[in-house]
Amino acid sequence: MIEIQSVKTHDLRFPLEQGAGVDAVHGNPVYSYAVTELTTNTNLRGFGGTFTLGAGNDVVCQLAQELAQPLIGQEIESLMANWGACSRSIADHHQYRWIGPHKGAVHLALASITNACFDLWAKARHVPLWRLLLDLTPRRILALLDLSYVEDVLDESAALSLLEHAYTTRDQRTHILEEGYRAYDTSVGWFNYSDEHIVANARKAVEHGFNAMKLKVGSKDVERDLRRVHLVREAVGENCTIMVDANQQWRWPVAMHACRELAKLNVYWIEEPTHPDDVLGHQRLAQAVNPVRIAVGEHIANRVLFKNFMLAGAARIIQVDALRVAGISEFITVSLLAKHFNLTVIPHVGDVGQLHQHMVLFNHIALDLPNAFLECIPHLREQFIYPARIENGRYLTPDTPGASFDLRSLTPITGTSAT
Amino acid sequence: MIEIQSVKTHDLRFPLEQGAGVDAVHGNPVYSYAVTELTTNTNLRGFGGTFTLGAGNDVVCQLAQELAQPLIGQEIESLMANWGACSRSIADHHQYRWIGPHKGAVHLALASITNACFDLWAKARHVPLWRLLLDLTPRRILALLDLSYVEDVLDESAALSLLEHAYTTRDQRTHILEEGYRAYDTSVGWFNYSDEHIVANARKAVEHGFNAMKLKVGSKDVERDLRRVHLVREAVGENCTIMVDANQQWRWPVAMHACRELAKLNVYWIEEPTHPDDVLGHQRLAQAVNPVRIAVGEHIANRVLFKNFMLAGAARIIQVDALRVAGISEFITVSLLAKHFNLTVIPHVGDVGQLHQHMVLFNHIALDLPNAFLECIPHLREQFIYPARIENGRYLTPDTPGASFDLRSLTPITGTSAT
Repeated sequence: MIEIQSVKTHDLRFPLEQGAGVDAVHGNPVYSYAVTELTTNTNLRGFGGTFTLGAGNDVVCQLAQELAQPLIGQEIESLMANWGACSRSIADHHQYRWIGPHKGAVHLALASITNACFDLWAKARHVPLWRLLLDLTPRRILALLDLSYVEDVLDESAALSLLEHAYTTRDQRTHILEEGYRAYDTSVGWFNYSDEHIVANARKAVEHGFNAMKLKVGSKDVERDLRRVHLVREAVGENCTIMVDANQQWRWPVAMHACRELAKLNVYWIEEPTHPDDVLGHQRLAQAVNPVRIAVGEHIANRVLFKNFMLAGAARIIQVDALRVAGISEFITVSLLAKHFNLTVIPHVGDVGQLHQHMVLFNHIALDLPNAFLECIPHLREQFIYPARIENGRYLTPDTPGASFDLRSLTPITGTSAT
Repeated sequence: MIEIQSVKTHDLRFPLEQGAGVDAVHGNPVYSYAVTELTTNTNLRGFGGTFTLGAGNDVVCQLAQELAQPLIGQEIESLMANWGACSRSIADHHQYRWIGPHKGAVHLALASITNACFDLWAKARHVPLWRLLLDLTPRRILALLDLSYVEDVLDESAALSLLEHAYTTRDQRTHILEEGYRAYDTSVGWFNYSDEHIVANARKAVEHGFNAMKLKVGSKDVERDLRRVHLVREAVGENCTIMVDANQQWRWPVAMHACRELAKLNVYWIEEPTHPDDVLGHQRLAQAVNPVRIAVGEHIANRVLFKNFMLAGAARIIQVDALRVAGISEFITVSLLAKHFNLTVIPHVGDVGQLHQHMVLFNHIALDLPNAFLECIPHLREQFIYPARIENGRYLTPDTPGASFDLRSLTPITGTSAT
């Protein structure tokens, strides 16, 4: 019997080296985690987090601390046997709900809480997160989910049917555990890196075994974006996959012009071309750039908005992040929605891949989602006790118990500033 | 020269009498304001607020305090001469933006800040807010707005054209200032009030001169909702307008069933039938209940989502709330979008009408939006120094300088609890 005894939170901020993490919209990021720690009546502790860019991380910690109070005294197996209901009751708290609902700081806080519960659960069973999730029957997976407000597309019976169908063919997909999951390199082309710098980084990525990588775009001058795509393409050759990411920078009519021009350049996807709430804006862009794909998700707050993007045909690459939506639970719900619509899930990794290396294995094996590639972003590797192992462009399957979110230090790094 | 010297915030919570404010989703609200106070080099102080249901109000105060720092030292007239750019720079802060963007606690904080600036500005000119706004030229109004991400529908030139066109016909609409703006009574039918209680309240509302009122619905049992609509209709007669409000309670397939049944009962609108992010869900409901109207807005976070609801034909009544979106500025942007789509703006009044009594006068006279009715909700009247005056079912035009948001006390009321 492992029982949650207390909740602590930790406001951890990690300054990056000059220029790293900068995109067209976020000029001075400090990669930060609002970490929830669950202590128990044993020496096991669960850790979960959500990601921010620094300022406001304290507020998310405070909300996680407050929203997690109902967990104290609960036994982990019985808690997780019906996590969907618990998640919903926190998300729909009769007062906190007003400052969401299901978005912003309260929802990030729920992500942190949820991810700590899953970590503790996996540790209690002495297995890595991916193994824990694969050991669950379809009905037990269903009980992890809050399907409220997506039942028009995915009610319990439809979700169960998807899960059960994929269950029968799992064996065909377990070889991924030995092969490792392919990675793409997202840090070759930060926005302010010089042309020379991105070319050198792109070559280095190929040397390290990557054959997919991402370039930040969203310049005031679209020509700069186009030139840099050409430069990377020259450096890596035709067999390499290149994605571009505008981080919501473009407004009409530039959004349409930039997307049309980039779509001519053999890019695999165009990511976050405009505002993340603009479902119908993305729908128009998606139609204009087809067959190039629109990718969105790192700022899509919840399953309801994802459902709208999918119904509208506004994106083909679903970049749901378990540190943005309400944790692993809502991540699975969004993945099931994507399965229903026959779309591809390629998570954004606010966790630099620590949790998501588990989730893509689960998604492929248990949900029969396509075997794609997972974002690789190395900046915080050294902060984790068990950093994701990436060799020759592939994530190696993690083997330590839990969700790989144990941090080396819970002491805040000082000297970070919001302004 | 009136210069902002400091920012203070106040976490004010007001417990309600038993049952008041309760709806199908929010079971135990404590009406609360996160108040921003701007002090100046004179004895003038600006006050603005955003509304919450209690828990989390402190977090919004903290964020308002932090986000308002760039205002310190600014002269109010020059600040407001280009408020649109200032609003955008706060909303797009390179770090805080991540925990939105443009939604949740950070956006509520911006509402509080913005409303304080407008209050100070009106006081500096010794005029009520409505007068301040009517005194501005179309170009000056335009400079108050952040139109980013809505330019596909409403760019600067389209907005200016709407403003200038309405400017030429203003004189035809100024008589509203003498008549007062019609009110509707929203507190006759809170969710847990007994049948007898709502019938008695409805009769009382008619006696007080109201001929429009709202009933809370969203019961597990749709028959209860229908019965209560019939009861109110019997009590007030056929000439009274009745609206129903489900506060996001319904999920599929109940949402469609309940809306179809209620649409048969001569209700003027059905408010918040389902999740406030569900653009396409509301679109389907709107088509099903036409010609009955769908009303949304109290939980629609920003202009981008409003634009999507409008483009989708998902709502005909736009209940934008200047305490939910980024204050008076984004309220005007959403009102202009509604004008473009020929829709009706009937604000939700998180401020119990104190600011919005000004905004509906501005909307009607300066934007040529329909003269409709404004929500009346009496619970916090006694907290304001200049409470809105409502006589014979009409808001009387306010005549004191500012935005009517001066509170009698800035001392927190204790004994409120989140749980």
